[in-house]
Amino acid sequence: MVHYKLYYFDVRGWAEISRQLFALSKTPYEDIQITHEDWPNHKQEMPFEKMPVLSVDGVMIPQSFAIARYLARQFGYAGKSPLEEAMVDALGDQVKDYFNEAYPYFIASHQQKPAEELEKLKNEVFLPARDLLFRYLENFLKKSKSGYLVDSGLTWIDLFVVDHLGTLCGFEPSTLDGHELVRVIFHNIKKEKYHGVNCVNV
Amino acid sequence: MVHYKLYYFDVRGWAEISRQLFALSKTPYEDIQITHEDWPNHKQEMPFEKMPVLSVDGVMIPQSFAIARYLARQFGYAGKSPLEEAMVDALGDQVKDYFNEAYPYFIASHQQKPAEELEKLKNEVFLPARDLLFRYLENFLKKSKSGYLVDSGLTWIDLFVVDHLGTLCGFEPSTLDGHELVRVIFHNIKKEKYHGVNCVNV
Repeated sequence: MVHYKLYYFDVRGWAEISRQLFALSKTPYEDIQITHEDWPNHKQEMPFEKMPVLSVDGVMIPQSFAIARYLARQFGYAGKSPLEEAMVDALGDQVKDYFNEAYPYFIASHQQKPAEELEKLKNEVFLPARDLLFRYLENFLKKSKSGYLVDSGLTWIDLFVVDHLGTLCGFEPSTLDGHELVRVIFHNIKKEKYHGVNCVNV
Repeated sequence: MVHYKLYYFDVRGWAEISRQLFALSKTPYEDIQITHEDWPNHKQEMPFEKMPVLSVDGVMIPQSFAIARYLARQFGYAGKSPLEEAMVDALGDQVKDYFNEAYPYFIASHQQKPAEELEKLKNEVFLPARDLLFRYLENFLKKSKSGYLVDSGLTWIDLFVVDHLGTLCGFEPSTLDGHELVRVIFHNIKKEKYHGVNCVNV
């Protein structure tokens, strides 16, 4: 049997999609959570000096989306045809583009910058990026027959979107107002009945 | 027979890996090059209002790396096992991270900003990002048995790295000095004997 170890910090962050995939597929794995204090002792063990990293019988795979795609393909959550897998990948890269665009706002929030600076970044950087992402997600959801982003059902990109938007809802409960199609993904994932997906308040 | 159409501008850019994959695999496709003047007439036809987009019998796949991965898997250039595919994907996402880090320098160069500003961005942003990427690529190349980034041979990420570094060499011929392992990828790709990969001066 394959021995999986998932290395990350003791937060959800970029490892959470993969933890959800292990939970959904009921696959045993070691969830190795490294503290920030201990991280300098482990950094050189990681191929790109970053986490998450997935060890598959000792082979170290870096990069969160590469890990998620690999696990999703093993467990049946990557899309059910090559074309659908490509569409899930495209959604993944688009979400990454959104994340990179919105990043100056996320980092400023994390660093507790002055309110005026945050408000400016929120209005000029974050909200336009988020609204564009919602528009694209909703276009996919309108066409989908499954209540998830692609026709055949739940994939790793639904898990990422729900985890991230769940975090945003924690800060700003109105995040999903007017976005009922997106909210449907949350409701459908809740029905999957597995451990703690991040949509308690949605 | 599948009917492929690749939509992009009339430049290499983010479509070039996919064009190379069509050339390597000798697969017929329509290379639809849209001018910047005509782009506003086509923007709404694209799922994320950006190009490249690949049409597969009318199904529109956006995002350059999603397209490249899809074609590479169809044509045998994605890695030869699920673990190797994951490693190629991880390299792809790492190269994207490098690209995002170095982007302020690329855009300032493109906008012909003053020399002093460019020099500062080059030294503080671009060179550290590039040197880190070289270090990671060289770690993979040291372990690889094939002269490409993964053991089983040429994949789409080699094509992307060579195309991008080939462009950099056009601006700065010393780019690969001291990076002989990386230069080997260029020499190996030249031996594949297909149309115009971007490494004429390497």
